[in-house]
Amino acid sequence: MQRTNYCGFITEAYLNQDVTIKGWVHRRRDLGGLIFIDLRDREGLVQVVAEPDASCFNIANELKHEYVVEISGNVRSRPNPNNELNTGKIEIVATTIKILNTAKPTPILVDDNNVSEVNRLTHRIIDLRSQKMQHNIRLRAKLTYSIRKFYDENGFLDIETPFLTLSTPGGARDFLVPSRMNKGKFYALPQSPQVFKQLFMVSGFDRYYQIVRCFRDEELRADRQPEFTQVDIETSFLSEEEIREINEKMIIQVFKEVMNVDLPKLPVMTYADAMYYYGVDKPDLRLEDFKFIDLTAQLKDCGFKVFNDAAKRGDGRIVALKLPASVTLSRKEIDELTQFVAKYGAKGLAYIKVNDVSKLSEEGLQSPIVKFLSADDLKTIIETTGASSGEILLFGADKAKVVNESMGALRLKLGHEKGLAKGEWKPLWVIDFPMFEYDEGVGKYMPAHHAFTAPKDEHVELLTTEPEKCLAKAYDMVLNGWEIGGGSVRIHNAEVQTKVFKAMNLTDEEARQKFGYLLDNLQFGAPPHGGIAFGLDRIATIMCKADSIRDVIALPKTTTGQCLLTNAPNTVEEGQLQEAGIALLAN
Amino acid sequence: MQRTNYCGFITEAYLNQDVTIKGWVHRRRDLGGLIFIDLRDREGLVQVVAEPDASCFNIANELKHEYVVEISGNVRSRPNPNNELNTGKIEIVATTIKILNTAKPTPILVDDNNVSEVNRLTHRIIDLRSQKMQHNIRLRAKLTYSIRKFYDENGFLDIETPFLTLSTPGGARDFLVPSRMNKGKFYALPQSPQVFKQLFMVSGFDRYYQIVRCFRDEELRADRQPEFTQVDIETSFLSEEEIREINEKMIIQVFKEVMNVDLPKLPVMTYADAMYYYGVDKPDLRLEDFKFIDLTAQLKDCGFKVFNDAAKRGDGRIVALKLPASVTLSRKEIDELTQFVAKYGAKGLAYIKVNDVSKLSEEGLQSPIVKFLSADDLKTIIETTGASSGEILLFGADKAKVVNESMGALRLKLGHEKGLAKGEWKPLWVIDFPMFEYDEGVGKYMPAHHAFTAPKDEHVELLTTEPEKCLAKAYDMVLNGWEIGGGSVRIHNAEVQTKVFKAMNLTDEEARQKFGYLLDNLQFGAPPHGGIAFGLDRIATIMCKADSIRDVIALPKTTTGQCLLTNAPNTVEEGQLQEAGIALLAN
Repeated sequence: MQRTNYCGFITEAYLNQDVTIKGWVHRRRDLGGLIFIDLRDREGLVQVVAEPDASCFNIANELKHEYVVEISGNVRSRPNPNNELNTGKIEIVATTIKILNTAKPTPILVDDNNVSEVNRLTHRIIDLRSQKMQHNIRLRAKLTYSIRKFYDENGFLDIETPFLTLSTPGGARDFLVPSRMNKGKFYALPQSPQVFKQLFMVSGFDRYYQIVRCFRDEELRADRQPEFTQVDIETSFLSEEEIREINEKMIIQVFKEVMNVDLPKLPVMTYADAMYYYGVDKPDLRLEDFKFIDLTAQLKDCGFKVFNDAAKRGDGRIVALKLPASVTLSRKEIDELTQFVAKYGAKGLAYIKVNDVSKLSEEGLQSPIVKFLSADDLKTIIETTGASSGEILLFGADKAKVVNESMGALRLKLGHEKGLAKGEWKPLWVIDFPMFEYDEGVGKYMPAHHAFTAPKDEHVELLTTEPEKCLAKAYDMVLNGWEIGGGSVRIHNAEVQTKVFKAMNLTDEEARQKFGYLLDNLQFGAPPHGGIAFGLDRIATIMCKADSIRDVIALPKTTTGQCLLTNAPNTVEEGQLQEAGIALLAN
Repeated sequence: MQRTNYCGFITEAYLNQDVTIKGWVHRRRDLGGLIFIDLRDREGLVQVVAEPDASCFNIANELKHEYVVEISGNVRSRPNPNNELNTGKIEIVATTIKILNTAKPTPILVDDNNVSEVNRLTHRIIDLRSQKMQHNIRLRAKLTYSIRKFYDENGFLDIETPFLTLSTPGGARDFLVPSRMNKGKFYALPQSPQVFKQLFMVSGFDRYYQIVRCFRDEELRADRQPEFTQVDIETSFLSEEEIREINEKMIIQVFKEVMNVDLPKLPVMTYADAMYYYGVDKPDLRLEDFKFIDLTAQLKDCGFKVFNDAAKRGDGRIVALKLPASVTLSRKEIDELTQFVAKYGAKGLAYIKVNDVSKLSEEGLQSPIVKFLSADDLKTIIETTGASSGEILLFGADKAKVVNESMGALRLKLGHEKGLAKGEWKPLWVIDFPMFEYDEGVGKYMPAHHAFTAPKDEHVELLTTEPEKCLAKAYDMVLNGWEIGGGSVRIHNAEVQTKVFKAMNLTDEEARQKFGYLLDNLQFGAPPHGGIAFGLDRIATIMCKADSIRDVIALPKTTTGQCLLTNAPNTVEEGQLQEAGIALLAN
């Protein structure tokens, strides 16, 4: 028998009709001589009742959790409607029940919220039956299709790039694949199709997109996976603004289609402003007003040594966060916050509780640091922060990096915990990134975005003189404090590309070895081009409000790169290694 | 300046308007003091003319092949229209020309058809500028989107499966990926997401699709790639016929959308009939009528020893192919065809030219074998084949395998060369495949489709008694002699699955080691399910009428698994091997 419809779609529209449904026994209850079955499929639950005189009563009696059955019956109104269910106004009076498959007791229960993540991942196939995972995986599928639809409608061509490709050491670590036919040689799995998509522009495809798996063999932090999915975009002949515009349209259309959410037009913030006001290049604008108040210049000559040192060291800064009078902080809370910022390297957390703004001394200002500050300093602080009675000021003063990280984290924590967030979805563009960051470990300037990012036209000369001052035509799309996409206008001129490699201290030989095929092709008529890549896993995680990226991936890996379902990776047969031309290193 | 439109879209609609275009200098001619430029972008060519008094004349004079330029000018009627171009009725009189990038002379010329494939693949980025490759890659993108659209509209969920997964030796060879974090262990790249998609059905997703890269480390024949793209489908609760029906709808809708071709409803042919009439399980029905005429039974006792032996050996057969009177074969051609079938193991190619059907002897029948055949035999042959005067009969007699392969190949060759094909697109389903094929190399029954294919309900018992007679709920979609898709109803019952593993001589331990996670989950409420996988590369190749699968892949590999653009695979640094925990084997 074909099913009439999914379980979750059998509503009043089917009243008094004969229907057939197929699904899983979610629950069975015996009540007053009747057997009630909640049958489940991907669209939801519906209640089936087997009456004692029905010929299927005995079969109904055999049914256990997660049995797969086909049930036919007649739809009637339910005496006690369940308004939480789409199907809650009706029930199906079973006439025939056919067991399509039995089920042993499952190792975890469907929809049990008290199962550890290890157990969920080990028994992932059962875990995926849960409402939560069904919702997340379906939302992700909808998201994926909505993105494809946008780019297809806008003339972008879906072009596939190789997975077995060239290793380019230097950035993140590659996963290697030994080549049996070319013994001693290796493919690498792509960290991104960056160079390929640029070359497609040189080929004249004009607009490219691909939703593609990428691979990085890095230490896995909580929200990293060794394989992740990227929405990869490249276009020719567009300016930085035009590239941002079309991709902004995408995210707005996709949020509307998938979430029925109207995103605002995206505000644009420079990297410099983002760091100045939020200490981070991906500010969470749900806390837009709860931002740093910079006091570095104002307190350069103040009497408090911690402030004074930070202001004078050159790479230091002093910032304040101002909590509104509606927020209180106990002594215990302040101690905990002090420990919190210490994790980010802060040596303390100075504060002033502004009890009475008319008394700028220890009388009106409750704080261990007031005694170190002159009346003028206190006046400056109160005026610059605009603090009123009842408000609390928290201070960070150290190297800018420490202040930004510690006070940035504190801003997010306090802001969300104390209910200062406004609005649900706050996207923005962050632009004007620096071309390079100095990597203290390597002792070199490294590209902040990647080596193919174009400098601002007026900054090309700085590449050779002061690379650290050179700004890039790079942009990130940020949503609720997550970087969801990042891109840039690329270098389309082989000479400029060579200058950038030089600024990175790559020798000509190294550059050629890694990127010779890019450099060559840039000389055969490369159009101006640029693009962006979005993290699909991240966007899905934010949309699902999921705890972890693993909750939006059907079959994710643990932080040690294992698949608990299949037990991959695993040992392989000696013959397989020999064919691949490799041997295990002795430990 | 933003471009007004693509070059290929500047038609009469823009007459007398000022336009801006951007693209590549495809050709430049100096004629009567004017400079003519054909400017190219992905949508085509448009003619630009620079007049001697224009301020951009000097720049026009500098332009070389493949320079990237931005040109503004006014559109006017062309005195000598070129009707082969969409833009052929107009030309653009240039006012300003801006060189966006210069180009060195390219190593191969765009649209040069005399470039070797090695050169095309080495300079792939330039090769991709050709009309042919632009067409193929764009058609493929359209095809991909059209397929996605169909499955999305029909409730299929796009769910991603892992690329770093478990090695399951036994079928094709896996590509291995050493795990740095789990030293001594390896991931394998998936040969297909077969088990995962079945498990998604156990999870209750009901309908799954994915367009996904798959990997097989096999010797690469001309039309194989180590990585290929599969349209992967799985559904729950549907019968074999219902699964075929929905996927048939897909191919019909996609051909309409992509090619504007109306495919017919697909005829259904059993595997047995396909082998009987065409000697192959993927018959090219453009040659539907040009089929084998089986004479095995009729010639069992004939006087010609070659025929007699073939008919009596049990695994032999005799077939004839009948060429219509419109086709002639010279002595030389017959000699060549004899050499052709010899490549497939045939020891000769018997023929009868039916010069006069009224004279069933050497007088009317021109043939070296007539003298071995009795009048009755000859009468049987002429009657069974229905041969008329002027027609030619070609015979195959040997082991069925040799006859099928040699005469099957001959049928395709002669049929297409002699113009016997009818119709352009001839799809069909081939069904009722055997469950197993005996692999003489391994000395075991191996699954003809794969180990998870369900037997026909009435053949389950045969699994343990006569597996060779057991037919499967398996089906292939065939188009013009290519298998474009293959699938089956799967085993959803752990006991039946175990029987199949037994028939394959897999021990319980081996089965558990390879597929334990499938067997386990089949016991927790697996619905009846089945699916299909289509070869996207093949469908694109057929649609493009391309010579090779490499012509529909942007960045393909050679038959030795190399990418001539990037030079992958390549040697890697010693440190990379150490980190991966492996060493090269000495040769």
